[in-house]
Amino acid sequence: MVILVSNDDGIHSPGIQALADTLRTIADVYVIAPDRERSAASHALTLHKPLRLEKFGDNMYSVNGTPTDCINLGINGILNEKPDIVVSGINKGGNLGDDVTYSGTVSAAFEGTLLGVPSFAVSHVAESDFKFETSARIALYLALLIKENSLPPGVLLNVNVPNLDIKDIKGFKITRQGKRIYDENAIVEKVDPRGKKYYWIGGSRLSWEKTEDSDFAAIEEGMVSITPLRLDLTEYGAVKSLRIWESSLNKKIGI
Amino acid sequence: MVILVSNDDGIHSPGIQALADTLRTIADVYVIAPDRERSAASHALTLHKPLRLEKFGDNMYSVNGTPTDCINLGINGILNEKPDIVVSGINKGGNLGDDVTYSGTVSAAFEGTLLGVPSFAVSHVAESDFKFETSARIALYLALLIKENSLPPGVLLNVNVPNLDIKDIKGFKITRQGKRIYDENAIVEKVDPRGKKYYWIGGSRLSWEKTEDSDFAAIEEGMVSITPLRLDLTEYGAVKSLRIWESSLNKKIGI
Repeated sequence: MVILVSNDDGIHSPGIQALADTLRTIADVYVIAPDRERSAASHALTLHKPLRLEKFGDNMYSVNGTPTDCINLGINGILNEKPDIVVSGINKGGNLGDDVTYSGTVSAAFEGTLLGVPSFAVSHVAESDFKFETSARIALYLALLIKENSLPPGVLLNVNVPNLDIKDIKGFKITRQGKRIYDENAIVEKVDPRGKKYYWIGGSRLSWEKTEDSDFAAIEEGMVSITPLRLDLTEYGAVKSLRIWESSLNKKIGI
Repeated sequence: MVILVSNDDGIHSPGIQALADTLRTIADVYVIAPDRERSAASHALTLHKPLRLEKFGDNMYSVNGTPTDCINLGINGILNEKPDIVVSGINKGGNLGDDVTYSGTVSAAFEGTLLGVPSFAVSHVAESDFKFETSARIALYLALLIKENSLPPGVLLNVNVPNLDIKDIKGFKITRQGKRIYDENAIVEKVDPRGKKYYWIGGSRLSWEKTEDSDFAAIEEGMVSITPLRLDLTEYGAVKSLRIWESSLNKKIGI
């Protein structure tokens, strides 16, 4: 089995190292990861500058680009064969609720899925004292399960793991993407020594809506959250309900 | 009516200027846009550096960040009131099929929707000789329609306009997100004057699957494509089908 590993915390993160070390016990592992932290890089793709690859060791490369670049370059350029699975992580911190759309880690799994490879992202919900060995072990179990059963086409898994020893994990839960409650005062304004204003995004910690079966709820219960996400963002309900707009818009242009 | 406008081509793009000028005939328009091109920035959010705002004129600001930063900063920090609508564009080039997930333009509308404001992105499908006045006019019609009817919560519109005079537009179509056929040779490898390799992503133009009602198909027919997209990326079908994984994973950790 060939597994391609990436992340958004950069190649020097202990999370990706724990992940690669553990997966090596069951597969040929290639690590292609950003040369530095690229958190919140989302699904950004580098189109306007050339990408450089640096070899770090056996099957280990860093790229001066985003997580999405790494997967694209890995599958389309570097690897001699298509990997069986793409695993992205282990992210330092959770990727829950609406935050998945900002996440470089989740986007790497998105890119793998786009390119036809079953993919999942693993994030470790903590701010310090990361028990990465728990997430790494869980990634291994999932890789084996995916190897055996594959994944529905166009679907990736967003996995979040609570910061517990594996014996204290309360179980696994297939979940839905939760919803953050946004803070009205999320911008922090400051003044620099030269009297000029500047701004920080994301000043305070936010809460989330108490939705049944959400990723947030599973983590709060000490469970591993596995959310299947889709590439197709179409809201099919609205495709139907907005059909009536076609004729009013057509009228505006004389049709 | 207050409209917040952004884009990913940067504040100096003629696309955003045409859009703002046209929308000004029906609303108070605020332009908050990246200070330079940020194509394929996706839903990236700047967390690790401070953001600077530069005033360019009445209600017009540039930010040294991504389209998502601009909307976040605009709604949470700069504007005195919540805008009625967020419009992102006019993008130089289409945002069709899976490309929407890479797009900074679409992500700005995503961010507006996340923050509770009805939002849409407008992209002009051309590579040169952009007839932006067509897209601007269509954005105006849509803004009026949204003001009147609002949008379902959690749903944004991804609008793509063919490069035609408005009288030659064949009509409006509510569509679904199409699917690219990916090129196996999408990476271009080059060697620099010092003998070191480098890579470009996205070497060649790609085709798309002939799906009925897709955004690609509408554009090919000379129609304006309007795709409703959702914030919730959960694949609910797979939430059900993957439930059986819970027990096999639980067994692995002795539950």
